[in-house]
Amino acid sequence: MSELREAFEACFGGLAAIGRDPAGGWTRLAWTDEDRAARAWFESEATTRGLTVERDSAGNLWAWWSGGLGTTADPSGDDRLRSPTRGPDAGGSGSAAAAGGAVAVGSHLDTVRGGGAYDGALGVVSGLVAVGELIRRGVEPARPVAVVAFADEEGGRFGVPTFGSRVLGGVLDPADLLERADQDGVTVAEALAAAGIDPGGFGPDPARVGRLAALVELHVEQGRGLVDLGHPVALGTGIWPHGRWRLTLTGEANHAGTTRLADRRDPMLGLAAAVLAARAAATELAAVATVGRVLVEPNSANSVPARVSVWLDARAEQDQTLDWLVTAFQAAVEEAAGRNGLAVALTPESRSPGVELDRDLTARLDACLRATGLEPPALPTAAGHDAGALAAAVPTAMLFVRNPTGASHTPAETAELDDCLTGVRALVAVIEDLACR
Amino acid sequence: MSELREAFEACFGGLAAIGRDPAGGWTRLAWTDEDRAARAWFESEATTRGLTVERDSAGNLWAWWSGGLGTTADPSGDDRLRSPTRGPDAGGSGSAAAAGGAVAVGSHLDTVRGGGAYDGALGVVSGLVAVGELIRRGVEPARPVAVVAFADEEGGRFGVPTFGSRVLGGVLDPADLLERADQDGVTVAEALAAAGIDPGGFGPDPARVGRLAALVELHVEQGRGLVDLGHPVALGTGIWPHGRWRLTLTGEANHAGTTRLADRRDPMLGLAAAVLAARAAATELAAVATVGRVLVEPNSANSVPARVSVWLDARAEQDQTLDWLVTAFQAAVEEAAGRNGLAVALTPESRSPGVELDRDLTARLDACLRATGLEPPALPTAAGHDAGALAAAVPTAMLFVRNPTGASHTPAETAELDDCLTGVRALVAVIEDLACR
Repeated sequence: MSELREAFEACFGGLAAIGRDPAGGWTRLAWTDEDRAARAWFESEATTRGLTVERDSAGNLWAWWSGGLGTTADPSGDDRLRSPTRGPDAGGSGSAAAAGGAVAVGSHLDTVRGGGAYDGALGVVSGLVAVGELIRRGVEPARPVAVVAFADEEGGRFGVPTFGSRVLGGVLDPADLLERADQDGVTVAEALAAAGIDPGGFGPDPARVGRLAALVELHVEQGRGLVDLGHPVALGTGIWPHGRWRLTLTGEANHAGTTRLADRRDPMLGLAAAVLAARAAATELAAVATVGRVLVEPNSANSVPARVSVWLDARAEQDQTLDWLVTAFQAAVEEAAGRNGLAVALTPESRSPGVELDRDLTARLDACLRATGLEPPALPTAAGHDAGALAAAVPTAMLFVRNPTGASHTPAETAELDDCLTGVRALVAVIEDLACR
Repeated sequence: MSELREAFEACFGGLAAIGRDPAGGWTRLAWTDEDRAARAWFESEATTRGLTVERDSAGNLWAWWSGGLGTTADPSGDDRLRSPTRGPDAGGSGSAAAAGGAVAVGSHLDTVRGGGAYDGALGVVSGLVAVGELIRRGVEPARPVAVVAFADEEGGRFGVPTFGSRVLGGVLDPADLLERADQDGVTVAEALAAAGIDPGGFGPDPARVGRLAALVELHVEQGRGLVDLGHPVALGTGIWPHGRWRLTLTGEANHAGTTRLADRRDPMLGLAAAVLAARAAATELAAVATVGRVLVEPNSANSVPARVSVWLDARAEQDQTLDWLVTAFQAAVEEAAGRNGLAVALTPESRSPGVELDRDLTARLDACLRATGLEPPALPTAAGHDAGALAAAVPTAMLFVRNPTGASHTPAETAELDDCLTGVRALVAVIEDLACR
């Protein structure tokens, strides 16, 4: 397996060289120079392996392996590929994989600010290396196979996670999002245009979604589940409901020295209440809640702030629990705001319902991996994923690779090389099973 | 008094046209383009009135009115002007004003981010208009008079308030400060060089300080003291002790969805504790404490932050009280940090001891203003001022002009035109009394 190891190390190292942040970790935000470089890297790695790269109408990249399928597997041949099985609204699963639709593996190239080298990257690299390994072995695909790199999964720039997969699937309406601005005031429309994408043509592609028989996303685990269980690879069962809210606390800017405490309307006190309320509600409900982003205006050491914006990220096992969490958070914040003369606005920025991954497809992957000697445990996750965003329209499954520290969205996020190679071999087996028989 | 009104309105309007911030209010941070424009405006206004402008070794601007004094009043004639009375270490006050030293009036041109039109500006404008009025009346100075515009009073860019006056007076060593960076990474040395100032020559000027017999700073009031008392103008008594501290809370960056609450080291919880501790300690001690600036890293909505920096601004009537406040703040923050697995560093960034303004000089101003029909109350302030920074070396006094809202460091900061003109007339009387007899 030395060739596989070398192939993996070269491929992973190439992507990890892009977007090193002088402040630590990796920063490849959507539609930035770093993102452009990562996409160029993807195209180069795919082309080197003989794959054909195209960009869909939502900015996602697809590297197609058609092997000897000829025109039947022509990725642009919508009619032939769409016809066999299902449109985006069709139900069921295994039947599609059995009937000639395409099989996609992959993840995303973008990162949060100062994130790690594995989140997203490991799935794309593993997909490229797995397909490369099948080609090296002379395996021929029986249906089209794509390695996919979804655009803007993290939402680190515009605050909308799984942007590319949700626009592709028609879950997000891009018209509502094009005027969203990043922290420098650049809008989505401007960022797309700068990346050479016509914002006017940005939108869903039901035909493309409809011709997918299966989507398998491999991802580094973002917790310590596999460490505790002692396995290198797990199968995902589902994704917790997840939401993001923006809380705006408006007080009154004033001089830090001369304004009496009794005369202040200090939104920083609302921020303190929000942070504590998020933690208390999450503890109470066995959920997770995080205030990871704050915007203070004017953010001057000798001024009482005029306004503080606070982003709440909250996830729970059930949608109902998530609702309870946000209700408790809002009540606590409004109480503190009333005491401190603040105006409060709580705005949902995104909400992803809980997702159950495809049971039939997951059962088929389980059988396939057991045949290779693995005994993958089943794990849920509280992280959002492109596989979850497309799960309503496409049979999806997820593979998780062990993360020794459990750390995620930080440079400390990691995976052992041997575990990564186990993940690649699992993906080789899965692609062969789904698409090469 | 229509001419005085017109002169004031034209002069004030000229400065208020510089540094309008698209986000609201005025932003003229030290050594920026806006600051450069304000300094050019100052030079133009002074020159128009026949004053001679020079820049001292700490970047402050001095507009000299020498009238018919000829060479005796040559502002560069160090020997003749320094000789009469006092070096920077001399005590006493009224004697210096009586013996030929120079009299300075003024304030500063810079603002905080999104500040108001009056803070600093009113003192400089009133000084220029008052000297212009004396010239118009044909009054001749008996000693040199300067209108001074101190550099970087707010510390809004580099976090060091009363920068220009403290460097001038030798209280701050510029060698310790030249490598300080603003939020874009530009250092003080680079900012000075860009403004045409040799950082190597940046430093104190004891000779200049020594030849000052009196410094009178007029300033818009930053609270509602004069509103409550029903007077347009007050005399300052002193400045509260004031300090700024930087608190760094280091936790561990992690994924907002997948990291269990029990596994988190979330510095945002330390921020919440710091905000509440500052308010509680200030309330307990009848002081003021403010967290107006926060820096979250990486500031990503779906990441537990790695680090949060918090700036504490605290002021109290006595130095001892200020010490108690910071001790209580630190204890509360360390307790919260211990509970949440955070590392804590509390670093003093600046500390200004309490300042008593010159009693003899203030008594003389009081008599002078009463002779014009005013009955100025005496007010302390919790705001730092250049007059306070130089009070150990020069007899200083302050005049406050009524602020109907009490608001400060915000666009809502204001003063009635009639009160501003009362302030200018007070300054005319003071300059005439101190320098034209």
